[in-house]
Amino acid sequence: MLFDKVAIIGFGLIGSSLARGIRKNNLAQSVVAVDRSQEVCEKALELGIADEATTNFAKGVRDADLVVLAVPVGACENVISDIVAFLKEGCILTDVGSVKKNVVDAVTPYLPEHVHFVPGHPIAGTEQSGPESGFAELFINRWVVLTPAPDVDAQALGQIVQLWEGCGSICEIMDPKHHDLILGVTSHLPHLIAYTIVGTADDLEEDIKNEVIKFSASGFRDFTRIAASNPVMWRDIFLTNKDAVLEILQRFNEDLTALQKAIRKNDGKFLHDFFTRTANIRREVIEQGQAAYVYPEKDKQKNVPEPQDVTVKSA
Amino acid sequence: MLFDKVAIIGFGLIGSSLARGIRKNNLAQSVVAVDRSQEVCEKALELGIADEATTNFAKGVRDADLVVLAVPVGACENVISDIVAFLKEGCILTDVGSVKKNVVDAVTPYLPEHVHFVPGHPIAGTEQSGPESGFAELFINRWVVLTPAPDVDAQALGQIVQLWEGCGSICEIMDPKHHDLILGVTSHLPHLIAYTIVGTADDLEEDIKNEVIKFSASGFRDFTRIAASNPVMWRDIFLTNKDAVLEILQRFNEDLTALQKAIRKNDGKFLHDFFTRTANIRREVIEQGQAAYVYPEKDKQKNVPEPQDVTVKSA
Repeated sequence: MLFDKVAIIGFGLIGSSLARGIRKNNLAQSVVAVDRSQEVCEKALELGIADEATTNFAKGVRDADLVVLAVPVGACENVISDIVAFLKEGCILTDVGSVKKNVVDAVTPYLPEHVHFVPGHPIAGTEQSGPESGFAELFINRWVVLTPAPDVDAQALGQIVQLWEGCGSICEIMDPKHHDLILGVTSHLPHLIAYTIVGTADDLEEDIKNEVIKFSASGFRDFTRIAASNPVMWRDIFLTNKDAVLEILQRFNEDLTALQKAIRKNDGKFLHDFFTRTANIRREVIEQGQAAYVYPEKDKQKNVPEPQDVTVKSA
Repeated sequence: MLFDKVAIIGFGLIGSSLARGIRKNNLAQSVVAVDRSQEVCEKALELGIADEATTNFAKGVRDADLVVLAVPVGACENVISDIVAFLKEGCILTDVGSVKKNVVDAVTPYLPEHVHFVPGHPIAGTEQSGPESGFAELFINRWVVLTPAPDVDAQALGQIVQLWEGCGSICEIMDPKHHDLILGVTSHLPHLIAYTIVGTADDLEEDIKNEVIKFSASGFRDFTRIAASNPVMWRDIFLTNKDAVLEILQRFNEDLTALQKAIRKNDGKFLHDFFTRTANIRREVIEQGQAAYVYPEKDKQKNVPEPQDVTVKSA
């Protein structure tokens, strides 16, 4: 068995999905759900996806050989300061945060020599929140980006790779700052834009708003899905990946202004050229096989790939 | 049979899907594919979805009791001026354009008394183009907005409603300008934003761009799908629905600037409140049943609802 005792702190969509993946793929003897909400702890036990559940962080992490921070990015520092004294010798610590540089900077100063930190980010999720919304197959065929320090303990890193591969994921190692730039483009800016456009619609006069919802199938609907994601999680992402988000937003604004001007000036050629260029990116996304992915149904028992040998890819 | 001879001008995704829907649901004796491309005409015959196909517009519409304009919005005026002399007495004319006021204004002046114009917009589509990409089930459970003049011939209107209901759609009657505002919010602005964000990504340095494509699953992927739509069609939409698009874009820009400022000033409360508010719209979209819709597989023979009695809903 890869781990003896795993403590997952924050038992929402990602935390509870990881718990399910660990149990389903026999990656740990026992899983402890640690959450500040008594209700979430009870739900974890009721769903049968944790062996123990506690709101007491110190108690929850004691004796764990793997501790997973699955809380909003902005909460990582508070959590680590609360639990660090109780982490056992040789404990591996990881997280699932969507921003990496900020988490690394917040967590690392607290860590004693004998704790091995392997920061991670599974690029998987739905717009749902809470322990009921998780499912073991969430990570199958999805990337997990790991951003360990160069002097990371090799065995700890290997075990985290095995953990995610055991859940069906593919691991990639990256510099934290580079991760934040890439995810700023692929995830954070798209979410910000989706939130904005749905907010703009929400401000419309009531009768128009009702019709917007009625006829949402023409494009708007996709944005409402993205803009229904967890508000605390996304608040923290924007505040902790501020520099990258603001930089990419600046570029986006320049492009949007150019398109706006082209519409105003009836510059059909500019619009046509722009829209032709963007179609090429879609082709590349399809070729990468990222377009065909569909979330498996929660209750469907799919075959998870067998855990493979540790193959750490170079940054 | 609802129609004797139907001529569909422009045999792309929508035109060819309508042809398939008409044939599958026995709504016309014969369907003529009219397209300026010889290749498209040959493909229509090869696919067996038209009884005749021609690049000669005058010949194509002769004797048709229904003529459907399924060309990009900006091409409607040229097409109508080419065909109007050949439309038979009592012919019904409709279109499928995503913008209605501009089409009504462009087409109406050409029409003689004996031709009945019922402008329409099926709110259905995929990011694919061309006759191969169509399928008969595209319109099932989708809205079709009709924007006829107040003095429209009642029988002609009834037949167009029956046509779309026969293909599985639900019809709604609306003022053309009101349609353009609603679709500006639900469809045109989302497409403009998606095009922008994918264009912004395309401008990134090559190595970053490759990784953006690799990790596109985190949100960006949805935008690439939208931004892969037909460039000519979308150029025309923005140029013909300019006023509504620019007005909504203005509101969008104000909201985006407010969010940008909140990120810059670390205003977590503003972000959290904004993101909480947008989640409500998603709930309303789901309640309207618009979220669950999935495009049926092309080759799956699904039951299309029986054509119902004509029920014209009030604007």
